[in-house]
Amino acid sequence: MGRWEPDARGRLERAAMELFVERGFEQTTVTEIAARAGLTQRTFFRHYADKREVLFGGAQILEESLVNSIAGASDSAAPIDVVAAAVVAVGAVMQERREYSRQRQAVIDANPELQERELIKLASLASAMAVALRKRGVSDRAASLTAEAGIAVLKVAFTQWVCQNGPADLPHLMRASFGELKAVTAASAKT
Amino acid sequence: MGRWEPDARGRLERAAMELFVERGFEQTTVTEIAARAGLTQRTFFRHYADKREVLFGGAQILEESLVNSIAGASDSAAPIDVVAAAVVAVGAVMQERREYSRQRQAVIDANPELQERELIKLASLASAMAVALRKRGVSDRAASLTAEAGIAVLKVAFTQWVCQNGPADLPHLMRASFGELKAVTAASAKT
Repeated sequence: MGRWEPDARGRLERAAMELFVERGFEQTTVTEIAARAGLTQRTFFRHYADKREVLFGGAQILEESLVNSIAGASDSAAPIDVVAAAVVAVGAVMQERREYSRQRQAVIDANPELQERELIKLASLASAMAVALRKRGVSDRAASLTAEAGIAVLKVAFTQWVCQNGPADLPHLMRASFGELKAVTAASAKT
Repeated sequence: MGRWEPDARGRLERAAMELFVERGFEQTTVTEIAARAGLTQRTFFRHYADKREVLFGGAQILEESLVNSIAGASDSAAPIDVVAAAVVAVGAVMQERREYSRQRQAVIDANPELQERELIKLASLASAMAVALRKRGVSDRAASLTAEAGIAVLKVAFTQWVCQNGPADLPHLMRASFGELKAVTAASAKT
């Protein structure tokens, strides 16, 4: 990552995404990605273990961000508000990269194996959030349900955001989805 | 499925499950499953496309049950109660097969590929429920959130049920989880 390869990671990511969109994920090789970025294969492998990691390398950062946000929240905050704040904060970061997110989603939607990977990522984010909530003293079941609710909102708001034409504000869509989830569950005639 | 092979499907399923538990899913062959059941490979393939389908063949029935239950619910019922009734009805059927469910879960927990398959199944159940809710006139986002909430409850209650020692009532755990999800979201200080 010397200075003779400025922003190598970003260049590789952009080159990979272009090729995935043009040719499909399966049909794209690491050699082609490196060539498109004007870099060597060796440089590619210094930044990514394989071409799939170009799409999923952000998952670790996402998880850390959610977990740190939950751990650092005020003691008095309700668990659902703690999770909502964590999810909305992540949404604010994603908002800066809508075009990237749209391209990435199109690549994933076209490939069942990548869809599986994405589901695994979401499931592991839910587990990590539940663990972080338990550390705050939230009971087992409430922690799992709150974390799953957070992931449900993330999925639904994200889908709306990437599909919507024209401008769309992900943090706003997330807040609206949390509000709607509350309304939906409150409408129950059961206790 | 002639009368000379009574309950062939059930025998194959029990034989497969025994072998998966004893040796692991990967190490078990269709030949061994058929032999353990006292049946031929040909009979196996009349009932299942492959050994994985022994574990996931019920997914289609599960989906139909959820969708039919949602479609047939009273017009006046709140969407979350429609989903809760559908999920609890499925729980009542599963309750009859707790030992099978525990074994199946142990096999899945031991194999990442099967875990992925299970996540895909749950995601597709959520999509099918959301579609069924939209057909009842529920708005797009509320339908997705309600369906995801139903799957969250199903996951959390099911995990509690299979892990719990001693007797455990899945429909009861599901109802309690829906109640807790309502309490968790209602605790939000935000609108």
